[in-house]
Amino acid sequence: LKKNANLQFREEFLQLHPTDQAEIYAKLVKEQRQNLYEMINPEEMADIFQALELQEQKELILELDQHYTSEMINHLYTDDAADLLSQLDESAAHALLKAMDLEDANDVKELMAYPPKTAGAIMTKEFISLASSHSAQQVIEQLREEAPNAETIYYLYVVNEQDQLVGVVSLRDLLTAQSNELVQNLMSSRVVSVDSDTNQEEVAKMIKKYNFLAAPVVSSDGTLLGIVTVDDVIDVLEDEATEDLGEFTAARGATDINVSAFQSAKLRSPWIVLLMFFGLLTAGVIEQFEETLNQIILLAAFIPLLMGSAGNAGTQSLAVVVRGLALGTLEKKGLFRILLKEFSTGMMIGFICAMTLLLIIPIFYGSYMVAVIVGMSIFCSLSVATIVGATVPLIIHKLKIDPAFASGPFITTVNDILGLLIYFTIATSLLHYL
Amino acid sequence: LKKNANLQFREEFLQLHPTDQAEIYAKLVKEQRQNLYEMINPEEMADIFQALELQEQKELILELDQHYTSEMINHLYTDDAADLLSQLDESAAHALLKAMDLEDANDVKELMAYPPKTAGAIMTKEFISLASSHSAQQVIEQLREEAPNAETIYYLYVVNEQDQLVGVVSLRDLLTAQSNELVQNLMSSRVVSVDSDTNQEEVAKMIKKYNFLAAPVVSSDGTLLGIVTVDDVIDVLEDEATEDLGEFTAARGATDINVSAFQSAKLRSPWIVLLMFFGLLTAGVIEQFEETLNQIILLAAFIPLLMGSAGNAGTQSLAVVVRGLALGTLEKKGLFRILLKEFSTGMMIGFICAMTLLLIIPIFYGSYMVAVIVGMSIFCSLSVATIVGATVPLIIHKLKIDPAFASGPFITTVNDILGLLIYFTIATSLLHYL
Repeated sequence: LKKNANLQFREEFLQLHPTDQAEIYAKLVKEQRQNLYEMINPEEMADIFQALELQEQKELILELDQHYTSEMINHLYTDDAADLLSQLDESAAHALLKAMDLEDANDVKELMAYPPKTAGAIMTKEFISLASSHSAQQVIEQLREEAPNAETIYYLYVVNEQDQLVGVVSLRDLLTAQSNELVQNLMSSRVVSVDSDTNQEEVAKMIKKYNFLAAPVVSSDGTLLGIVTVDDVIDVLEDEATEDLGEFTAARGATDINVSAFQSAKLRSPWIVLLMFFGLLTAGVIEQFEETLNQIILLAAFIPLLMGSAGNAGTQSLAVVVRGLALGTLEKKGLFRILLKEFSTGMMIGFICAMTLLLIIPIFYGSYMVAVIVGMSIFCSLSVATIVGATVPLIIHKLKIDPAFASGPFITTVNDILGLLIYFTIATSLLHYL
Repeated sequence: LKKNANLQFREEFLQLHPTDQAEIYAKLVKEQRQNLYEMINPEEMADIFQALELQEQKELILELDQHYTSEMINHLYTDDAADLLSQLDESAAHALLKAMDLEDANDVKELMAYPPKTAGAIMTKEFISLASSHSAQQVIEQLREEAPNAETIYYLYVVNEQDQLVGVVSLRDLLTAQSNELVQNLMSSRVVSVDSDTNQEEVAKMIKKYNFLAAPVVSSDGTLLGIVTVDDVIDVLEDEATEDLGEFTAARGATDINVSAFQSAKLRSPWIVLLMFFGLLTAGVIEQFEETLNQIILLAAFIPLLMGSAGNAGTQSLAVVVRGLALGTLEKKGLFRILLKEFSTGMMIGFICAMTLLLIIPIFYGSYMVAVIVGMSIFCSLSVATIVGATVPLIIHKLKIDPAFASGPFITTVNDILGLLIYFTIATSLLHYL
C-alpha cells in the first residue's frame, strides 16, 4: 500500500514544473528528503537541483551519497555543474569530478578554468551545432536526437570542419523553409558572438540590445566554445543591479542576505571607517572657524540641515549619471549638456530652498543674519553639490577607477567639506562687514 | 547607375540585424532618411522601428507620410504599436488607428485600454494558439503558415473552443514527438499564467523564477488574451532597477536623462524641500542643547562626522533589505533574524569606529573628554542607525506605503535626528558629572 502511495506521489510530483518541485524539496525536513531520494532518480534530481539557489545546492548536496551525487552532476548543464562545484571545497569537488563521466568532467573543468564573471565562466556547453551542407530535414532529424540534452534548440549554430562558428539559423527559419533547403542558404553568416573573456555585463548588454535568446561564445581563433542563454543573462542583470546598489551605498558584497553579521561587519566597516577619516576633515574645517562659531553659536544648529540638503541634491545627480552610464543613454546626450543641466537644476532647487529658509528662520529662530547666511550657503552648496554628484562618476568612469569611490557616501562627504567651507566663509565675511 | 548602387545598398542593408539597421538609420541626416524611405518598404521599416528607442520612434514618425506610416504600423507587433501610439498626441494616434487595418487597430486599442505597467499593457497579441485535437504534424504545418507573424513560436498555447487557455506545449517537445501524436497528449495542462491586471514587476519575477521565454496573459474567465515575452521582461527589470535607484535617492522620475533641467528641478525639488523641513528638526535639537555647546564649542566640529557615519551605516542596512525584498530572499530568512543581524553588524562597526576615534581625537584635538563623548555617541548611533535602516523599509513594505519614504535621504534624516539626540544627551550628562 505504501509503495502504491509512493508511486502516486512520484507521478504527481514529477508533473510539477522543476521550479515548483525545488520549492517543495527545499521545504522538506531531512527524513522526508531521504525518502524523496529513493523515489527520484539522479537524472530527475538534476532538474530539481538546477532550480535551487546556489546556497541551497551547496547545503543539500552534502547529504547525498557519492554515487547518487556524481550521477546527478552528470545530468546537470555544464554551467550549473561548474557553479556548484566551485562552491565546494577543493577535495570534494575533485572527488566528484573524478566520479563523473570523463567528457562531462572535462567540460566542467574547462568552464571552471575561465575567470569568474566572463562569458566563458557563465556559458554552457550544451548547444547544438550544424554542418552547413546539411538540409533542413536532416537538421530536424538531428534535433530529435540531440534536443533532450541541449539547453536551447531555438538557435542553431553552424560550424565548419575546424569547429569555427560560421553562421546561425533559428529554428523558426528552419521550420518555415523547404525540407530540402541547405543550411548554408538558410543561415545568417553575420553572426554576433562574444569572446570567452568578455565581461558578463557586456554579454548581457549585447543580448538585451539584440533581443536574442542566446549568444555564442568563441575562442580567439573563432572556435565555438559554448552559448550563454537569456535566463542566465537575467540573473547577470539582477546581480549587476545588486552590485550597483551595493556600490551606491559603499556596502559592496555585503548586500547579500546570507552573509553573517560578523562577515557583514568585516565587509562594511572598512568603508565606514575610511569615510569617517574623510569626516575628520569636516571636523578640521569647523575647528578652523571656531571664532566665527563662538560669535554666533546658532550657526552650529544649521550644519546638519545644510549638509543633508547638499548630500541629497548630490546623490540625485549621481543617480541620474549612474543610470545614464548603465543604460548607455548618457553618451548619446553629450557630457557637457548633462553637466550644464545638472548645474541649472541645482541652482533652481537651491533658489527654492534659500527662499524658504529666508522666510522660516527669522520666524522660528529670530535671526535675519543667520537666515541670510544659511540661505546664501544653501543656494551655493546645492549648485556645487549637483556638479560634484554628476562629475565624480563621469571622471571615475573615464579613468576606470574603482566605481565605489563614486558612491553616494563618498560624494556626500566631499559635498560636506565643500558645503562647510562655503557656509563658514560666507558667515565669516558677513561678520566682518558688520 | 545610381539605381544599381541603390539596389546594392538596399540588399546589404537588409542583411544587417534590425538592431544594427536602426542604429544606422538613427544616425542619418534628414535627406538620407528620405532616400531610405524610398528604398525600404513599410514592412521592412517596421523591423527597424521596432529596434529604435521609443523617444526616437516618436521623433522620426512625424516625417513619414500618413500612408507609409499606417502601413508600417500594421506590421509592428501590437505591443510596440500600442507603445508608440500612446506617445503621440490623441488626434494623431486616432488618425493612424483609423488608417490601419481594422483587426490590427482593434488589437492595438485593446492594449492601450489596459492600465500602464500591467501584463495587459505590455503583452503582445501575436501568439500561436493550438487546438488540443490536432496532431504534431498538423501543428508543424500551422506553424509554417503562422510563424512569420508570431512574436515567438517556441511556446505554443492550447485553447478550447471558448478560447480559454488549457495547456502549453513547447516547440522542443513538439519536434521530438511522433508526428501523429495529439497535442492533448503532449501538452502540459499545469500552465502558469498571469491575469491581465497583474503588475509588470510580478510578471517579470514569475518569468525569471521559471526561466520561461514567454508567459500567457489571461482574462478573469481564463480566455487567452496575449503573451509577454522574455525580451520585454528584461526591459521591465531594467526599468524597475532605474525606479529603485530613483526612489533610493528621492529622485523618482527624474533619473531619466531626457528630462529638461526645469522639469528635473520640478520633480526633484519637492523632495529636497520636504527633507529640508525634516532637517529643520535637527536645527531645533541642536538649539535645545545650545548651553552644552556653549561650554564645549569643539562638540560642533564632530556633528558632520557623526551624522555622516550614522547615515552611511543606515544606508548600507537599507541596501541589504531593499535588495532582499526585490529578490525575494528576505522572506526565506525571517525578518527577526535580519534585524538582529543588522543590529549586531551595527554594534561591531560602531565599536571599531569608537576605538579609532578614542585614539585619534586626543592627538589632533587634545580633548579626552570630547573623544569619550564622540566615541560613545558613534557606537550608540551606528547601532541605532542599522536598525532604522533595516526596519523602515520593512514597515513601509508591510503597510504598502509609498516606498520613497524608505529612501536613503529619509532614513538618513531620521538617523540625523536620533544621532544628534544621542550625542547631546551623552554630552550633557557627562558635563553634569564633572
